[in-house]
Amino acid sequence: MIIQQEAHRMKQIAPKLANASNELRNAALAAIRQALIEHKEEIFAANQVDLKRAKEEGISDAVYKRLKFDEGKLAAVTEGIDQLMGLADPIGRTMLRRQMDEGLIMEKVTCPIGVIGVIFEARPDALIQISTLCIKSGNCAILKGGKETRETNGVLFGIIAEAAYAAGLPEGCLLQVTQHNEIDELLTCEKDVDLLIPRGSNAFVQYIMNHTKIPVMGHADGICHIYVDAAADEEKALPILIDAKTQYTAACNAVETILVNRSIAADFLPKMAKAMEGAGVHLRGTKEALDLMQLASYPQEDVMEEEDFHTEYLDLIASVKLVDSVEEAVDHINAFGSHHTDCIITEDDAAADYFQSMVDSAGVYRNISTRFADGFRYGFGAEVGISTSKLHARGPVGLDGLVTYKYRINGDGHIVGDYAEGRRAFHFKDL
Amino acid sequence: MIIQQEAHRMKQIAPKLANASNELRNAALAAIRQALIEHKEEIFAANQVDLKRAKEEGISDAVYKRLKFDEGKLAAVTEGIDQLMGLADPIGRTMLRRQMDEGLIMEKVTCPIGVIGVIFEARPDALIQISTLCIKSGNCAILKGGKETRETNGVLFGIIAEAAYAAGLPEGCLLQVTQHNEIDELLTCEKDVDLLIPRGSNAFVQYIMNHTKIPVMGHADGICHIYVDAAADEEKALPILIDAKTQYTAACNAVETILVNRSIAADFLPKMAKAMEGAGVHLRGTKEALDLMQLASYPQEDVMEEEDFHTEYLDLIASVKLVDSVEEAVDHINAFGSHHTDCIITEDDAAADYFQSMVDSAGVYRNISTRFADGFRYGFGAEVGISTSKLHARGPVGLDGLVTYKYRINGDGHIVGDYAEGRRAFHFKDL
Repeated sequence: MIIQQEAHRMKQIAPKLANASNELRNAALAAIRQALIEHKEEIFAANQVDLKRAKEEGISDAVYKRLKFDEGKLAAVTEGIDQLMGLADPIGRTMLRRQMDEGLIMEKVTCPIGVIGVIFEARPDALIQISTLCIKSGNCAILKGGKETRETNGVLFGIIAEAAYAAGLPEGCLLQVTQHNEIDELLTCEKDVDLLIPRGSNAFVQYIMNHTKIPVMGHADGICHIYVDAAADEEKALPILIDAKTQYTAACNAVETILVNRSIAADFLPKMAKAMEGAGVHLRGTKEALDLMQLASYPQEDVMEEEDFHTEYLDLIASVKLVDSVEEAVDHINAFGSHHTDCIITEDDAAADYFQSMVDSAGVYRNISTRFADGFRYGFGAEVGISTSKLHARGPVGLDGLVTYKYRINGDGHIVGDYAEGRRAFHFKDL
Repeated sequence: MIIQQEAHRMKQIAPKLANASNELRNAALAAIRQALIEHKEEIFAANQVDLKRAKEEGISDAVYKRLKFDEGKLAAVTEGIDQLMGLADPIGRTMLRRQMDEGLIMEKVTCPIGVIGVIFEARPDALIQISTLCIKSGNCAILKGGKETRETNGVLFGIIAEAAYAAGLPEGCLLQVTQHNEIDELLTCEKDVDLLIPRGSNAFVQYIMNHTKIPVMGHADGICHIYVDAAADEEKALPILIDAKTQYTAACNAVETILVNRSIAADFLPKMAKAMEGAGVHLRGTKEALDLMQLASYPQEDVMEEEDFHTEYLDLIASVKLVDSVEEAVDHINAFGSHHTDCIITEDDAAADYFQSMVDSAGVYRNISTRFADGFRYGFGAEVGISTSKLHARGPVGLDGLVTYKYRINGDGHIVGDYAEGRRAFHFKDL
């Protein structure tokens, strides 16, 4: 039960890190940035070992690209650290300062969550982004990266932790977990770990959610929709659909289902089918939609029934369905979507407002690609993940999602009995 | 599976209620207030049935008092509704408005959580407070009150729902659950219920937390501490300790453990023992503490070992332990507390600041009673509960804890490919 012991030790370190000044946390980030640059050859060499093994194991090109850590990726992560240092301190911010009565002052102040466990995919830059986000937000971090990057991550973690401690952060505020079976042990640390952020496949995230009492932030499904309204501008619709499906097919914010207003379907669907086919996208859909697309032919398995619209492809495939109205589109999205990110293509302000008000998702877009759902693109610097939960953080999670708050109240011998029995009364005044 | 069907139906109503205007929601609150006054005799009569049965079943005086719904309680709840109507609209508030690039505008806007299930104790006023908080925050509510108030709640719910629908809120946005076995069915509604708020005993709340995939907000334990520092003012300490233990013994924010600085213990403990004894409080503690209290004698079972300090008495009993420093007090509280509300009694600013910074609890107080941890006393109007979770709402939960947010982004055909391939760049500017 090594992880339980480590998590328990970390829990005791957490208040110390929580009270490290912004200057100290920024100095640690600067030291990490510097150390990464100084030790880059060491990192690249370790990465070569991972890449070589990955090739031998016949890994796909897409995964290989993500595994690779080179000068370009180093430049990107050091730029990210620069951005992070420049962001306002997320902790110690007074959200509310209220006089409750004479001499009785309440302050609602942001503070770190405490100990956060993050389980992430095989991307060396993810380890750097996540650990620096946790440091900036004053949180202790337990980090478990994908096994395909174990050599790179081992070197990176050593460099980051050493630089952070040398800069003055409390020793032990970062922990790397390397064995897959240690994840199960981490899941039992509900007494000491305040939050888990799992990133990865739907099945993996579901597994985490179903096997721990620790609060989990993140998302399992990413079934994003684009609704092409009767008042859609075709010149915007086609590039948006292609971007949303093909710009990064494996991403959770890629579009999976296209809803088209029936009144424009006969004209729009053949053009859409042609454009999407040209971009390498295979379209499935209801029989009605497929017939209108004027495809040469389509296999029977492409004909979709209602329940098939729960499908997340993560591939160059999309579902197509016709609807009569924006109301029907909203109902479909709320019933079949994953409350991640959904978009309407329309020039009609009333339809857009209805859609954006009624769709129950973290991101409700008009006339843009769903692929914008990303912490960097939202201006958060980076993200630890995207949350489809409605509690705490929703959508891309940056620094704001890594803090909570506490109520500090200062008085001078105030007791409740005086108020309960009418000898004193509250006089609320926000300061 | 009636509850599952009802919850599913409610999920479809939720966006409609979420988009009801503040005027409409306030009009519904005014109608509810009026209807409660008009139907008061009917409510009082139903309450008499509950009270009669309760007496026959030999219920305690404390529970009887809470069960009772009379002119005084009616005046209190109608005043509460007045306050609620006066509070700013918690939904539709723009938290952030940011230009991401030319023509690409992001808004982070508050919105209701959706469908909330609240399971609460046998207090008729709780049903009114919770349903009106949910209406003001635009949330559909599934309400299950204690069985001892079933007659009163039946009448109250009928009056509230009828008034709300007549005022124009979507029919079905409120649901009452009356059978205890329906709670288990409610726990399976994770597809349609966004949040559960259980109030009640530790065992009950733990049961809920362990038997559902729905996010749960609330608290199981309330092990609150008061630390009497070396620089404590005795004139403040004794009344605060008595208030915190005796003003409402069964409350979660009553003090359970008193930590006293060893340097003042020989002088302070006998005075504290005398004062607490005079207030009817029985003190247990470490042998060292008990010996210093100069009690005539004490039974062996009052001598506490380390692990006994996890105890929540909810009774006129408290634990006492000596510590060497504010640091040791903080370590004890973080290890044995429930992260609810903890207080330091001191005139030393540095000790107070250390305590309030390092104690990892929702409420960190100085020189006041822990009993102040309450939504009304914080100026929130009312509360749906007190949360010891660190995610989303923490401490007393009012309107702010009943809302989430969504990101609305409006563009004009913007696609991610343009940014990923360098044809366009983000220009973040907060508006």
